[in-house]
Amino acid sequence: MHRFKIGSKTADAFIIRDDEFYHLVKVLRLRQGDQVAGFDNSGAQWQGIIESIDKDSAVCRIMKEEFPGVEAKTAVYLVMGLAKGEKMEWVIQKGTELGMAGFIPLRTQRAVLQLEGKKAGEKVARWQKIASEAVKQSRRVVEPEVTQIADWGDLERILPPETQWLIPYEDETNNSLSNTLDGFKAEYPIAILIGPEGGFTPAEVSGARERLKASSVSLGPRILRTETAALTSLIMVLTHFGDLG
Amino acid sequence: MHRFKIGSKTADAFIIRDDEFYHLVKVLRLRQGDQVAGFDNSGAQWQGIIESIDKDSAVCRIMKEEFPGVEAKTAVYLVMGLAKGEKMEWVIQKGTELGMAGFIPLRTQRAVLQLEGKKAGEKVARWQKIASEAVKQSRRVVEPEVTQIADWGDLERILPPETQWLIPYEDETNNSLSNTLDGFKAEYPIAILIGPEGGFTPAEVSGARERLKASSVSLGPRILRTETAALTSLIMVLTHFGDLG
Repeated sequence: MHRFKIGSKTADAFIIRDDEFYHLVKVLRLRQGDQVAGFDNSGAQWQGIIESIDKDSAVCRIMKEEFPGVEAKTAVYLVMGLAKGEKMEWVIQKGTELGMAGFIPLRTQRAVLQLEGKKAGEKVARWQKIASEAVKQSRRVVEPEVTQIADWGDLERILPPETQWLIPYEDETNNSLSNTLDGFKAEYPIAILIGPEGGFTPAEVSGARERLKASSVSLGPRILRTETAALTSLIMVLTHFGDLG
Repeated sequence: MHRFKIGSKTADAFIIRDDEFYHLVKVLRLRQGDQVAGFDNSGAQWQGIIESIDKDSAVCRIMKEEFPGVEAKTAVYLVMGLAKGEKMEWVIQKGTELGMAGFIPLRTQRAVLQLEGKKAGEKVARWQKIASEAVKQSRRVVEPEVTQIADWGDLERILPPETQWLIPYEDETNNSLSNTLDGFKAEYPIAILIGPEGGFTPAEVSGARERLKASSVSLGPRILRTETAALTSLIMVLTHFGDLG
C-alpha cells in the first residue's frame, strides 16, 4: 500500500495535496477506490480509500486508525560534518530507515565540502526529500527533520539542554561507546557528532567536550569512513536502547 | 604511512610486487628511504623502510614487527543475495572496514541482478579489489575473501559445519537478533544471510532453516533496504561480541 504525508484531516477523512498529490496522480496514477495509507508525523497512521480526486487534492475516507509501534523510543540525532559526494545523502537515507530522530549538517574546520547561501538551502531541501522518501520506504510515521546547515555555536540552540552528546573520535582509546551509553538516559535526546573525511580538529573535540559536555568515544580498533562511523554509532545507540533488533 | 600487502618476506625484509608494486612506484611515487607498512593476512604487520626498488619489486627493511589487535575475534561472514547498482560494492567496502571475515555473493530466486560465467568472475575480482582497498583504509591486517558467486546448495561446503547461520527476515516478529545471539558461541563462525531487494522467498527461508539450521531474526520494526540490513546485522553481531565499540 502506498504511503503519503497528509495535508490535513477530519474525523472521517484525510486529504492529500501538493507534491504528495502530484505523486499520487501523475506518478502512481492511483484512482478512486484505491487503498492508501496516510501519516502526519504525529505517530498515527490511517488506512484509507480514495473517495474523490479533483484538480489539486485527493480526499480519502478513513477505514482504520493505527498507532504502529514503528518509531524508536529514544530520540537519536545525527550531527554530521559536511562530507563530499553522496555521503550525506547516504547517511540521511539509511539513518531515516534505521530510526533517527533528526539530522543536523555541520560546518567543520576540515570539511572539504563548502555550502553557503542559496546553494546550502537547495541542498538541505534535497536532503529533506531523501528523508521523506526513506520514511515511506521504511514505513515510519514520523519524518526526521533535516535542519539548515549549522555552525558549532548553533548546536546548543538547536537541541535541548538535556541532550546527551557523543563524539566518536579516532584518537579515543579509553572510552568504549557501550560503556558510555550505560551512563545515558533513554528519555533524553542523544546526539552523535560525526566528523568529515579529515575528522575533527583537537580544538573542535575539546570545544564539544566543554560546551556540549560531549563524551568522546571509540567505535573500536578499525578506522571507519565518515559515513560508516555515522551509521555504526547510530545503530549501536539504537540497539543499546532496544530500538533496533 | 602507506600500507601494502606483501609478496614475500625474510627475517629482515619484506618484498612488494605486482599490483602493490605498481601502486607504490607509479601512483604513490614512493622512493628509497620512505617508510611503509606491510601485512600478509597472517595478523602480523611490519613497519619498514624502502631499501631498494628495481623494475618489478621493492625490498623493505623491517624496523618493527607488530601484532595489532585490529582484527575482530569473532568470524562474521556476510552472505548477500545479488543486488543491483552499487549495493554489493558498498557492503563489501563498509563490511571490510567494520571487520567482517569474508563475503559470499549468493544467487537467489528474486535477485534482479544476474551474473554468470566470465562476467561473474570479473565482478568477483572487482569486489575483491574493493575489499583490498578497504583493508588498507581501515588498517586491518587480514583481507576478507570474496568468494565466487554461490548457489544455496554451495553454502554448506563453503563454510564449516559449526557455522551459526542467521537470516534477518522481514516477516519475523518473534525472535530479536539480540536474544538469538545470546545463544551463539563467539568461537564458532557466524554467517548472516541477506536477501536481495525483493527479499527471500518463504521456501528459501525454510530451506535455510532446515539445511543450515539458520535462525530467522527480526532487525526491529522498521523496513530496511538490503544494504542497510547487511551492515546493521553485521554491526549488531560484532558489537554483541565486543568486536566493535
